[in-house]
Amino acid sequence: MRFLRTHNGEGRSSTIDVFLLHTMADSFAVQSALTERPTHSAVLIGAGYIGIEMADALTQRGLEVTLLSRSQTVLPAVDPTLGALVAEELRRHGVRVQTGVSAARIDRITDRSGSGLTVADSVGSRHAADIVVVSVGVRPATALAQSAGVLVGTTGAICVNRHMETSVPDIFAAGDCVETYHQLLGGYSYLSLGTVAHKQGRIAGENAIGGRREFAGTLGTQSLKVFDLTVARTGLLEHEAKRAGFDPMKVVIEASDHKAYYPGAVPLHILMTGDRATGRLLGAEIVGHRRAEISKRIDIVATALFRDASVEDLNDMDLSYTPPYSSPWDPIQIAAQAWTAARVKAVKSHDESF
Amino acid sequence: MRFLRTHNGEGRSSTIDVFLLHTMADSFAVQSALTERPTHSAVLIGAGYIGIEMADALTQRGLEVTLLSRSQTVLPAVDPTLGALVAEELRRHGVRVQTGVSAARIDRITDRSGSGLTVADSVGSRHAADIVVVSVGVRPATALAQSAGVLVGTTGAICVNRHMETSVPDIFAAGDCVETYHQLLGGYSYLSLGTVAHKQGRIAGENAIGGRREFAGTLGTQSLKVFDLTVARTGLLEHEAKRAGFDPMKVVIEASDHKAYYPGAVPLHILMTGDRATGRLLGAEIVGHRRAEISKRIDIVATALFRDASVEDLNDMDLSYTPPYSSPWDPIQIAAQAWTAARVKAVKSHDESF
Repeated sequence: MRFLRTHNGEGRSSTIDVFLLHTMADSFAVQSALTERPTHSAVLIGAGYIGIEMADALTQRGLEVTLLSRSQTVLPAVDPTLGALVAEELRRHGVRVQTGVSAARIDRITDRSGSGLTVADSVGSRHAADIVVVSVGVRPATALAQSAGVLVGTTGAICVNRHMETSVPDIFAAGDCVETYHQLLGGYSYLSLGTVAHKQGRIAGENAIGGRREFAGTLGTQSLKVFDLTVARTGLLEHEAKRAGFDPMKVVIEASDHKAYYPGAVPLHILMTGDRATGRLLGAEIVGHRRAEISKRIDIVATALFRDASVEDLNDMDLSYTPPYSSPWDPIQIAAQAWTAARVKAVKSHDESF
Repeated sequence: MRFLRTHNGEGRSSTIDVFLLHTMADSFAVQSALTERPTHSAVLIGAGYIGIEMADALTQRGLEVTLLSRSQTVLPAVDPTLGALVAEELRRHGVRVQTGVSAARIDRITDRSGSGLTVADSVGSRHAADIVVVSVGVRPATALAQSAGVLVGTTGAICVNRHMETSVPDIFAAGDCVETYHQLLGGYSYLSLGTVAHKQGRIAGENAIGGRREFAGTLGTQSLKVFDLTVARTGLLEHEAKRAGFDPMKVVIEASDHKAYYPGAVPLHILMTGDRATGRLLGAEIVGHRRAEISKRIDIVATALFRDASVEDLNDMDLSYTPPYSSPWDPIQIAAQAWTAARVKAVKSHDESF
């Protein structure tokens, strides 16, 4: 984005109306803007977790919200099939979702009725708003570490081993500033998640006082509430799995969260990915109603991944059942069965082609 | 229970008002009783899953409900500490819970205002009601199998191996009539659960047509909704673990289901059991609000058990986090941390005593 004129903390204007979201103070600044003066509309730049959560929160506070997404759908952290369901939920609640566009420029317009902002996007449209919130990702803060001679990797984050040791003896690092060990990739990537930071911090602390604990690794497990939906994922997206040398095959199923005869059943959309060659479980993504225990359902898959399970193992697992909450086969298991059936079919058609 | 005079299906009375719950037809008979004549009160004999679900359902239909429990609390399938929370929830919704009593006798009383029943309990109290529902457990139906010469075990259920083969070639058995392989016990027990029956049926079917699939085993995972609570368990109770030769140690913790600053956080009570000597995870039980994703939280533990995890493994697992649904450490992990701390303390005090 070029020509972004942010007034955030620059003191060039008495009215702060373009916000970056990084610290708690940033979020209090948004709060102040909403309470201290009439604020009717917002343009949100970036449709990742933070942008989507802001769209939810600001809509619920009565603002008209426009969300600009650079990718072809929202939430690139999930498969586009499921991202489309999230975009639908946003639109259902009145959010103007613009996909495939980035913000090119923000201008302040002042006329007799007061002042406002317009965001010009990359396809030439202009979006007016009282405030603009920018959430386009984070970069690791490594200046202090680099000044101490600590090695930084290609991602720009600090290199650590699984003991959270940096390249300099007795200097440990953890959290959003480090490259994180990924259990499925068997290597390091950059991933800023609170859960990971907590685990790494604990390990760095223990090892700094003489311990020898190892970080088990991330699986990229994440969840998000957006209006009445929950979106959750764990493991690898298809393109990530391919890049890591797997032979990913995915299925998407729809199943009720619990027995339909018990009131309140809602549909879940589950995408499951496994390795075609070995049957190894590689990941899952779920979208459905926020009451459908989705965040903990994804954790069932995360737990199975943590222990190197196959897709078929999911099917053998003794999961709980009572009609208000599940079915004798949990939706996770129905997805596993669909995956196994699809794999058999794929192998058959492969055999027939020879 | 002696002298139980059930009119269920005996045709001795035009009014059926004592019910056993076994088949769908039994449940339709209860439905009819409630809709076809004024029914104001019920005595439920047995405080296991079925008795408690009936107490919930009949109370919600406006009946006054008395629940008789033979054990000192309700729901003997969970630890008494958590059973007490279930009893509290029942009482909070107006159920008269009588513990430590069994039903001794049911009598019909007819006077000018109509007819009713009284249940005399083992401590000499009498409980009047329009209907009585008896749910005191099930026995395997093995007559057909025995007539075919199939072996039955000490539990009274059919002996099968993990391929669901009986002692007679080409005769397979599955479900509530068989002894079930328990993964943690490494042996067989009797356990009538729908999830297990589904899995076994699938395996028996596949093997009957030439397959060679093995039943992975149960972990005794179960869940239950009672009014606004969910109760769920997986793995072994303390006394089961002891009998199986483990050295069980348990902790009970209370934690919020999600970040307290996000509206709607509710407390969860988690009991976690592990083997003191080896650190192996043995089971967990959770009680808390029905919106707290408890049934799928217990499934996280069930999945870890399925893959022979240790208690500490739970702590290393990459579970999802977003403020509406969890904390950076899920309550399950907070319980695992408490268990690990308690174990360190136990080992220390053991060392000091030498």
